[in-house]
Amino acid sequence: MPYFDHNATTPLSPAARQAWLQAQDEAWANPASPYREAARVRVRLEGAREAFGLLLGAAADRVVHVSGATEAASVVAAHLARSLPAHARVAVNPTEHPCVLAAFASAFPGRWQGLPVDTDGKVEPDRVASLLDGSRASGAPVGALVVMAANNETGVLQPWADLGRVCRARGVEMVCDASQWLGKLPAAGLGEVDWVFGTAHKFGGPKGVGLLLRAAQADGFHGFVGGGQQRGHRAGTEDYPGVAAMLAALSEAERSQVLWEEERAAWRNGFERALLAVLPGSSLVGAGTERLWNTVSVSLPRHENHRWVARLDQRGFQISTGSACASGKQGPSHVLAAIGLEPEAMRRTVRISAGWATVMTEWTALAQAMAAVAAELDGAR
Amino acid sequence: MPYFDHNATTPLSPAARQAWLQAQDEAWANPASPYREAARVRVRLEGAREAFGLLLGAAADRVVHVSGATEAASVVAAHLARSLPAHARVAVNPTEHPCVLAAFASAFPGRWQGLPVDTDGKVEPDRVASLLDGSRASGAPVGALVVMAANNETGVLQPWADLGRVCRARGVEMVCDASQWLGKLPAAGLGEVDWVFGTAHKFGGPKGVGLLLRAAQADGFHGFVGGGQQRGHRAGTEDYPGVAAMLAALSEAERSQVLWEEERAAWRNGFERALLAVLPGSSLVGAGTERLWNTVSVSLPRHENHRWVARLDQRGFQISTGSACASGKQGPSHVLAAIGLEPEAMRRTVRISAGWATVMTEWTALAQAMAAVAAELDGAR
Repeated sequence: MPYFDHNATTPLSPAARQAWLQAQDEAWANPASPYREAARVRVRLEGAREAFGLLLGAAADRVVHVSGATEAASVVAAHLARSLPAHARVAVNPTEHPCVLAAFASAFPGRWQGLPVDTDGKVEPDRVASLLDGSRASGAPVGALVVMAANNETGVLQPWADLGRVCRARGVEMVCDASQWLGKLPAAGLGEVDWVFGTAHKFGGPKGVGLLLRAAQADGFHGFVGGGQQRGHRAGTEDYPGVAAMLAALSEAERSQVLWEEERAAWRNGFERALLAVLPGSSLVGAGTERLWNTVSVSLPRHENHRWVARLDQRGFQISTGSACASGKQGPSHVLAAIGLEPEAMRRTVRISAGWATVMTEWTALAQAMAAVAAELDGAR
Repeated sequence: MPYFDHNATTPLSPAARQAWLQAQDEAWANPASPYREAARVRVRLEGAREAFGLLLGAAADRVVHVSGATEAASVVAAHLARSLPAHARVAVNPTEHPCVLAAFASAFPGRWQGLPVDTDGKVEPDRVASLLDGSRASGAPVGALVVMAANNETGVLQPWADLGRVCRARGVEMVCDASQWLGKLPAAGLGEVDWVFGTAHKFGGPKGVGLLLRAAQADGFHGFVGGGQQRGHRAGTEDYPGVAAMLAALSEAERSQVLWEEERAAWRNGFERALLAVLPGSSLVGAGTERLWNTVSVSLPRHENHRWVARLDQRGFQISTGSACASGKQGPSHVLAAIGLEPEAMRRTVRISAGWATVMTEWTALAQAMAAVAAELDGAR
């Protein structure tokens, strides 16, 4: 059953499963308890922080373990609303994940603004620099910039490293949702950004565990309050088995990148060429810029996307109409709207996202299946 | 290695492990995705909601899956702060878990008050009724009452069912942290309370997953915002494997209660008698009232609690100085302070908490070990 919806979630990787089970056997004590077995779990947790810090290029004490990207977006937005000056604004990329848009809209009522994006949905560092400089004179300065690393619907990469430099030079905090980047492209360098987060189930780890890098200067940052866990940055019993599984999955994915990325990108590109050949009039979204190696967002020439998804499902191929968390809803994609697609084209757009384990023959079979579904749907008209 | 710190966390139960692994194999798709495999996960998730609803006596649509009790306390406090009238206050039991105290102190600055407790730490329904009635005339009415089901440090049970009736009769919302109750005593009836929560790792489930019952009338309740998961009540990809494991653990614990509770309580009582015999001058906390069958809170006649914990650890017995999340901190227990223990007695108080798998010979061995440690510490003076 070829699975092409890895941007929604991934199966648990064997390494993550193994790490989770081992931790449940060896390191299930509450790390806050006062005996040696608990101290050993504390040591392992600190080891995981060090390892994540090394992967992302950040001091270990910036690593906060959370339940996922939605929690991270929520607590970072709330922290910035508390800590930025009362008149400061946030500037948010309009193609962010719904949890990021909603968290900042909720924490900064009347104090947030959308960023301009180009027709691929990219935020341009030079335009951001002008916007930040201009805002300082306006009396409502931008105090934080919110731009994701890679888009979940289109795979388009944002120039987060350049944006980070633009922000740093101006004392503006940058928040970067790296949920789709982590595990697909190297984590190295993300630690240069103030606030970074991601979630394990997007890269082979379990659901319910995620990673947040807090800003180095934000010693007083806290998410949930209560017990003194995680140096006060996040109350709640630490889920070491989940953290161990997340680390195993990310480490494995980082190795996969080095070995396989080029080949995987070539397979995806081959699929796109095949699709354009068998379905003339198809239009790739974001094809003019750098994208994740695994993602295809394509407006098909005819028929609504949910009909494609259902017919392909019957043939054993799982693809998506868009972001999983939004696909239950009716209505057009805010991402595609932000980059100027017409509503009619949006309704013909599907998302296809592979994983490290996806093989070339699955891509080939998907292109053939899509040609067959096109014929079916054309006949059913 | 006899483990006597089940109120801090429990090992993963075989049933929970099995359920988690099976779900990771069969039901790992993102339940919000648009194909049949995802729909099957949605069906399983709804089935879990039904099952939790049946166990607690609540409509399934009140069940919200969260990451644990700390998240639940945080989002319920925030919801009540948004939804109660601006002048309404919350009345909070002073022996609540730190995450509940902190969440309500943070959400209701200047608008919360402590409840009176007796010398066992119990909140009396009649006193609460008078307090609620009196508060209505005061111009700062109590809009919500916060009282846990069972105390994590002492095991003392609160009369939550009676308190629920007192609140219901007066239109006051009641919040009940059932973290230590669930899995040890029957869940049935908890659904009568407006807001109830607990966390899987206290009853054999994995860390990082918890259960919240929202108030039936709170259709607009939301925790994290973002995707439309859980009917908008909690954004974030649903962790079905975690939920399945939590359900397996709770179902197993409910069966254990029926089979074993009386015998387990008798073993604990036998231990307490043995301890008082070998260590005269020991004083049980909360012994005058109903307590969990698994918990012993005892002020030992001499030597500081951390010395007892360390010596028992060397002998292979894991006990605690108090709440795990607080045991890393210095300073006295707020629970013991609230029931009037002197600071000097608090420093001599330890918590011992068994599990369903604890056997009588382990209790006997613990009493013997404590006698031996007393002799050791007396000699080392």
